[in-house]
Amino acid sequence: MEHNTPEQNFAALGLTLPPAPAPVGVYKPCLTDGKYLFVSGHGPVRDDKSLITGQVGREVNLEHAKMAARQVGLTILSSIKAHLGSLDKVKRVIKVFGMVNCDTDFEKHPHVINGCSELFAQVWGEDHGVGVRSAVGMGSLPANIPVEIEAIFELH
Amino acid sequence: MEHNTPEQNFAALGLTLPPAPAPVGVYKPCLTDGKYLFVSGHGPVRDDKSLITGQVGREVNLEHAKMAARQVGLTILSSIKAHLGSLDKVKRVIKVFGMVNCDTDFEKHPHVINGCSELFAQVWGEDHGVGVRSAVGMGSLPANIPVEIEAIFELH
Amino acid sequence: MEHNTPEQNFAALGLTLPPAPAPVGVYKPCLTDGKYLFVSGHGPVRDDKSLITGQVGREVNLEHAKMAARQVGLTILSSIKAHLGSLDKVKRVIKVFGMVNCDTDFEKHPHVINGCSELFAQVWGEDHGVGVRSAVGMGSLPANIPVEIEAIFELH
Repeated sequence: MEHNTPEQNFAALGLTLPPAPAPVGVYKPCLTDGKYLFVSGHGPVRDDKSLITGQVGREVNLEHAKMAARQVGLTILSSIKAHLGSLDKVKRVIKVFGMVNCDTDFEKHPHVINGCSELFAQVWGEDHGVGVRSAVGMGSLPANIPVEIEAIFELH
Repeated sequence: MEHNTPEQNFAALGLTLPPAPAPVGVYKPCLTDGKYLFVSGHGPVRDDKSLITGQVGREVNLEHAKMAARQVGLTILSSIKAHLGSLDKVKRVIKVFGMVNCDTDFEKHPHVINGCSELFAQVWGEDHGVGVRSAVGMGSLPANIPVEIEAIFELH
Repeated sequence: MEHNTPEQNFAALGLTLPPAPAPVGVYKPCLTDGKYLFVSGHGPVRDDKSLITGQVGREVNLEHAKMAARQVGLTILSSIKAHLGSLDKVKRVIKVFGMVNCDTDFEKHPHVINGCSELFAQVWGEDHGVGVRSAVGMGSLPANIPVEIEAIFELH
């Protein structure tokens, strides 16, 4: 898989990208600084622009939470394409900060955030698609989304 | 506004800066590394050095929370001036991480953190004053402050 | 102390390092990018590989929480040694993000995270061992660990 481009890898997955979300506050979805691409916290946007909502462990079960994290990953990919034109301009994942909106007794944050991390590994490969990460539990998230993820990438 | 300097823009707002807070732990309020300025998590310090406190949605309502976020922004500006001497040495905002101390059913974190982001946009302009951002809900914050914000800036 | 190497400083403390933890998800514990070392969120790993667990303010009191944060620091040192071979390759601490798993009325996050920050200051010295920091309260953490810390270091 590593010999293909990120765009080819993504196309092979047969997944669709949701529309790149417009900011709902005073921020930029993506910002390029030299060889770094900084990406704002993104939520799980569906293809119809609606957001997946619900707290994990209450309205959203573990597997749906992981799918929501994958949808966050797709939303990030969509923002990157809107900002850079192509996923091929990204060399690798540097850092992912994965935030889960869940009960205080929830313990499986890494499993949830893997939904996004596995997508990035499929797109950029097992080495370049995997960076450092924290996967942690928030008290709440905007609009009651179950997962929010921010990231830093390195550009070619 | 973009033709004025950040210091001129700030002066035009007619706002006062609180005293730059001393660290209450083993950390530096600001750290310069090459062209980057890293800023520690700051709380809302008042002009008399006291902190605004209270959880958002309980003791602090939405508009007061936004004003608290602006006060965090002013506190960050004060730390930057103490560290660099002038806001003019900062070229632009790279990244803001906005943390709201709120109930688990709170949903308007972006509205709260806009209190800080709008201030930065007024000081550094609509392009350079706006970076990437996450605005999220914490389970608790030090000294029960309603908002804490950390940031990364680019220097000239 | 600043005239000794970080490895010498650490040896003088008489502390033992836990085994470097293997990832429990799709991430790298450490990632080097140019002069920066990015470190994933780490928990408090004991010498027998088990994790310290429990929420601060409930099962874990303030001083045990600070000791757990020091254990997180030791775990990070272990990961760095596994990644780089020596602590001497790290020039200084840039940024620490300290996350405490605690009740919503907990207020002493800086005291807890000092357990890690004081360790770093002992290893790299009062200037290079101290960076910017946020110390904040999470709704929950993976495997119910009391403290998780991620960090960015500068390399020589």
